[in-house]
Amino acid sequence: MSAPRSEDALIAELRAVIGAAPRRSLRLGIGDDAAIWRPSRSHDSVITTDALVEDVHFTAAMEPEAIGHRALAANLSDIAAMGARPVLATIALGVNARSDEGWIVRAYRGMTALAKRSGCALAGGDITRAPAITFAITVVGEVRPSNVKRRDGARPGDVVFVTSALGASHAGLLLSRDAVAVSDAIAAAARTAYERPEPQLAEGRFLGASRNVHALMDTSDGLSTDLARLCAASGVGARLDRIPVDPVAAAVAAARGEDPDAYALGGGEDFALLGTMNARAFGYLAGRFAARFGRELHNLGAITEGAGVRLANGVALPRSGWDHLRGN
Amino acid sequence: MSAPRSEDALIAELRAVIGAAPRRSLRLGIGDDAAIWRPSRSHDSVITTDALVEDVHFTAAMEPEAIGHRALAANLSDIAAMGARPVLATIALGVNARSDEGWIVRAYRGMTALAKRSGCALAGGDITRAPAITFAITVVGEVRPSNVKRRDGARPGDVVFVTSALGASHAGLLLSRDAVAVSDAIAAAARTAYERPEPQLAEGRFLGASRNVHALMDTSDGLSTDLARLCAASGVGARLDRIPVDPVAAAVAAARGEDPDAYALGGGEDFALLGTMNARAFGYLAGRFAARFGRELHNLGAITEGAGVRLANGVALPRSGWDHLRGN
Repeated sequence: MSAPRSEDALIAELRAVIGAAPRRSLRLGIGDDAAIWRPSRSHDSVITTDALVEDVHFTAAMEPEAIGHRALAANLSDIAAMGARPVLATIALGVNARSDEGWIVRAYRGMTALAKRSGCALAGGDITRAPAITFAITVVGEVRPSNVKRRDGARPGDVVFVTSALGASHAGLLLSRDAVAVSDAIAAAARTAYERPEPQLAEGRFLGASRNVHALMDTSDGLSTDLARLCAASGVGARLDRIPVDPVAAAVAAARGEDPDAYALGGGEDFALLGTMNARAFGYLAGRFAARFGRELHNLGAITEGAGVRLANGVALPRSGWDHLRGN
Repeated sequence: MSAPRSEDALIAELRAVIGAAPRRSLRLGIGDDAAIWRPSRSHDSVITTDALVEDVHFTAAMEPEAIGHRALAANLSDIAAMGARPVLATIALGVNARSDEGWIVRAYRGMTALAKRSGCALAGGDITRAPAITFAITVVGEVRPSNVKRRDGARPGDVVFVTSALGASHAGLLLSRDAVAVSDAIAAAARTAYERPEPQLAEGRFLGASRNVHALMDTSDGLSTDLARLCAASGVGARLDRIPVDPVAAAVAAARGEDPDAYALGGGEDFALLGTMNARAFGYLAGRFAARFGRELHNLGAITEGAGVRLANGVALPRSGWDHLRGN
């Protein structure tokens, strides 16, 4: 355990972890007042920001590489949800005299590994004192203007889809807190879903390239909250016919005697992509999706006139997802 | 006093404060997974990030509009130091159940006023729980590739210059803590320098446009630390012949019986621009600077071979600036 020595020393150590910038477009990285890059001339730029805070989103007892991975993954998932590809990330790091410098360096290793695999340069940042370790990450991406997918484009009659079954991350969160009587394979899969969610960048670009996809967002706060937001942004309602629960979530829910649907509806942090598309295109696109990604594009139901999300039996679905201020 | 109700409610209120995006280039602002803008085709993009944390950089007893202003100003100053103009900003906001929502809205008002005046759109953000109010701000800017100024371009023989006299912000910080026997006018000027530092965007673009300017950075941590960083980045030394102390800082130092030079060398947060240029160009550029901005471009001394900053008498100058981890 060692406390940070000084800002310049910690910057030098983190710079060594990050290494050379992987993208040719980055012209100046860490160390100056700002980083510089050359945007692609035929693309628009996109930007998103997200913060992970010690004792809110993680604890120092957790594996630092996984925390670094998740901090960046949440942002990359937002980039995926725009149909974009990532270009670079900046990190505002909050630390204090109690922070373990080795822990922080390992967290940067986790971030760096995901960044490299995603073609995302770690371009710079800021270090400041803070009462809890904080990673405030901003990612810039690029997208062809015709491929941009927003959350306000859903139209009545659209099919609602999601790119993965849901709830495994919540199952992993529960396993990180309590012992649960499931097989080692289920436990390992749940932990991976929670600790190392993989941003669906290729899936986002695949869906972004289709004109039949009308709206897209990522599922970060649970299906019930996220679908309600998509509907509110688009001025429509939705009928939820099916709730695709990940088998890992179903196994953990069964072992705990809980409703597996609640894991998918309220769990959050699955970082799947939730969207809507022209109903006539669904069969064709779902087939291409399955061929490309080796899994099902889940059909959840339909966009309707009106407002709010209802189950097939007409019952209004309450929002049960994660609200960052209430922390429920 | 009211605690935040929910993320969506606070987002809606902050969105109302921010209002419409002032720049045509912003195609999609707050509310989606990411914001979108169209970069200027002839420019490079720059990005910088900086965080302000409650009880580290400010307290909730301070005027929230000033805190919002300062949080954004620190980033805009980095944009100025690249010779760039700002395009947009994102904010990762940390709040908790004790945070006063009205205070946060007022802080956003201060940020919004500076953003509008600077041509910078507030394009989106993230709200999360955190043990202290935190503003982690990222600003994107644009600059012609030929106008980029880095901190590693200083050459032996260059004149070292700074775009304002220094130390007034530190004087204002001291006045915010203790009563000091100075005139109301001095006290007001010191407080303004501390609470509402004006990022020198026009000055940065003016200096960026000159080929004779070889290096540029902003003074955020005190002249001794910042000049040492510029020298280290450029692989050179510097001889500091003159320390330009703001008259406001001199008055406060005199009233407190302190060394005014220490305010300029160690105070920080002046957000002036520190740079070097071809010595033969200094007279001409300083004249144009004075005509354009109505104040002196201060000549501090010269870049030398070797390393480190020395005073004219040959004594090595220690770093006495703010180090964010030690908090001295």
